[in-house]
Amino acid sequence: MNLMAHFDPTHHPHRRFNPLTNEHILVSPQRSKRPWLGQVEPSQPSDIPKFDPTCYLCPGNSRAGGQKTEHYEHTYVFENDFSAILPPPVPIAPPASHPLLTTEPVSGGCNVIIFHPRHDLTIPRLPLDDISRIIEEWIKIYRRRGGEDGIKHVQIFENKGSIMGCSNPHPHGQVWSMSAIPTLPSVEIASLTRYASRSDLPPSDAPKGPDGHPCLLCEYAFTEVKLGERVVVKNEHWVALVPWWATWPFEILLLPYHRHIPSIFHLTPEEKLTLASIISQVTIKYDNLFLCSFAYSMGIHQRPVPLSSPEETDDHDICHLHLHFDPPLLRSASVKKFIAGIELMAEIQRDLTPEQAAQRLRTCAETHYLENGDVALEAN
Amino acid sequence: MNLMAHFDPTHHPHRRFNPLTNEHILVSPQRSKRPWLGQVEPSQPSDIPKFDPTCYLCPGNSRAGGQKTEHYEHTYVFENDFSAILPPPVPIAPPASHPLLTTEPVSGGCNVIIFHPRHDLTIPRLPLDDISRIIEEWIKIYRRRGGEDGIKHVQIFENKGSIMGCSNPHPHGQVWSMSAIPTLPSVEIASLTRYASRSDLPPSDAPKGPDGHPCLLCEYAFTEVKLGERVVVKNEHWVALVPWWATWPFEILLLPYHRHIPSIFHLTPEEKLTLASIISQVTIKYDNLFLCSFAYSMGIHQRPVPLSSPEETDDHDICHLHLHFDPPLLRSASVKKFIAGIELMAEIQRDLTPEQAAQRLRTCAETHYLENGDVALEAN
Ligand SMILES: [Zn+2]
Ligand SMILES: [Zn+2]
Repeated sequence: MNLMAHFDPTHHPHRRFNPLTNEHILVSPQRSKRPWLGQVEPSQPSDIPKFDPTCYLCPGNSRAGGQKTEHYEHTYVFENDFSAILPPPVPIAPPASHPLLTTEPVSGGCNVIIFHPRHDLTIPRLPLDDISRIIEEWIKIYRRRGGEDGIKHVQIFENKGSIMGCSNPHPHGQVWSMSAIPTLPSVEIASLTRYASRSDLPPSDAPKGPDGHPCLLCEYAFTEVKLGERVVVKNEHWVALVPWWATWPFEILLLPYHRHIPSIFHLTPEEKLTLASIISQVTIKYDNLFLCSFAYSMGIHQRPVPLSSPEETDDHDICHLHLHFDPPLLRSASVKKFIAGIELMAEIQRDLTPEQAAQRLRTCAETHYLENGDVALEAN
Repeated sequence: MNLMAHFDPTHHPHRRFNPLTNEHILVSPQRSKRPWLGQVEPSQPSDIPKFDPTCYLCPGNSRAGGQKTEHYEHTYVFENDFSAILPPPVPIAPPASHPLLTTEPVSGGCNVIIFHPRHDLTIPRLPLDDISRIIEEWIKIYRRRGGEDGIKHVQIFENKGSIMGCSNPHPHGQVWSMSAIPTLPSVEIASLTRYASRSDLPPSDAPKGPDGHPCLLCEYAFTEVKLGERVVVKNEHWVALVPWWATWPFEILLLPYHRHIPSIFHLTPEEKLTLASIISQVTIKYDNLFLCSFAYSMGIHQRPVPLSSPEETDDHDICHLHLHFDPPLLRSASVKKFIAGIELMAEIQRDLTPEQAAQRLRTCAETHYLENGDVALEAN
């Protein structure tokens, strides 16, 4: 390769910094042309029935623990029958035999949210009304579980696709509440808190966080909207972009850019409507990218738990609501990015630049590839 | 589940702390009984030929870039034809358009180390002499690349198995040298450095680091050897254990426990021999666990670059040589652990406890399941 004196981010290897996690990523754009001889993922079945009598998430069916999933009409929430975290009281571990071998008790719970009675309709296939119902369910469970005694964090997430370890195509997400703030959210909160106290930042017209302090994500969203090159879609309140520091080839960060919003509990009716709309747009573009049901993990980062009313404030109001979409696919429906060797031992490395990924997603059609006018109607 | 007042680490969910990365992991041992309905990995071909005319790593064959892999007899090193990092000079990026959008130049190189001419023999199938030759090659390339101008880190690693994104069964590893210390090693070095300056530690008979300062990993290895319950194998110099804070179901940390050793360049002849032997033991146990060629990513962490002689010292001598083995398999040759949802958005979660994993590995046979007395001989 001919090295020019002029830096070109689409040709020259470089490192970028993730200010949320304080990690670098290595970008090797010159490498995306190398031949692919590796593992190909099994394709997902395309003839999924509307109702599956063996699916424990379909209305009226039984679950492994013997419980029954009721005949619900829209969304349905239940406690996971194989919860990773259990309700209190938890027995306290004895003192550690060595300071390097410490055990911390943990309690809480794991819920499942079924998004829709139809076994075959994932979020990108759902009408906006149904996505709005999922958002209302997220808000309800965030408040309910986050208001429980001793709960310090509520993590809402969705695994979509068998490549993400999700064994059931029936559209659903999960909510894990915990008596501790988990590793990644606590790293992000520390970064947001550090940024809020910085006095060396250039002047900016971006929205501000609590008490007029700078907010890393308000500033970042504002800047990206202005620049545009990493933006995939945006509307009056929300922007979906491939972050400067993206780990996954087509990773998306979805966040409000007009005002500082600590949690989904703080959303106005209009912000909820436009959130439903941009979630629909993002997931439709994902499915259209490789003409498949696009796998991802989605997670909501926000205030670890809600305050009892939106008028209250505390230190955690520095959190700026955002959704991470982490999809593993790289080149096609069957070739994924591997997190191995260099990633596990040194640092994240990517070939496609975030700008190239944003460009690819921007140009994807806005109508779902399976949509022919009657599917959405039928879903109602 | 019946919650007892007495804490039982094999029944009660809890969190453990990883002092190398400052991350917590969530252990949910009560959950390992849940049914598995998810994705099953394609099995690996078992009839791999000794020589494959289409394999660019087999002696005498051509590579994609047109270069030829010579007729080597033992190990063979070449520059990766699709390097993720390129040699200097690298063009300097223009000033960032915003402080949150910084670019750092990076240079260096990527090498491939072929472990053996035989296309079908992975490390667990190789005689000790051949593993010793790989160790000598690691030392040589660590010194050569680490001695280059501007190189600040040399990462030696191996991806084994298509499930780790390794497209070719021919036994080989990689070496990436970089003009910066990557994210994970620099986090570990910071942890080791912080530990070295602690004055609140209980008295210990463990070996000490430079200038008599405490070494986190000397202390940890010493403690684990004493306790034994997470040890998989050990010999006169080395211990292989499932770390207290393991992310992967059968993760292994392999390190010297008799003296503080900053890098592979510091090894005595006897330490090299016993390293070859314990690498053989660990990888044989791995293959025997599910009677398959067990996939993993292995990486060597040590001084980022060597000093010109083993007598010199500097701040980086606080590094304590260790090898990470990160294998993705969980229940069988075809069911892997997924890093998704909760791991990507909150924190690492595991079901099997590290003690249970160590126990399973300890009881695996010490002779390779494919070995019938003539294979090792034939390989010579
Ligand atoms: Zn976040
Ligand atoms: Zn390490």
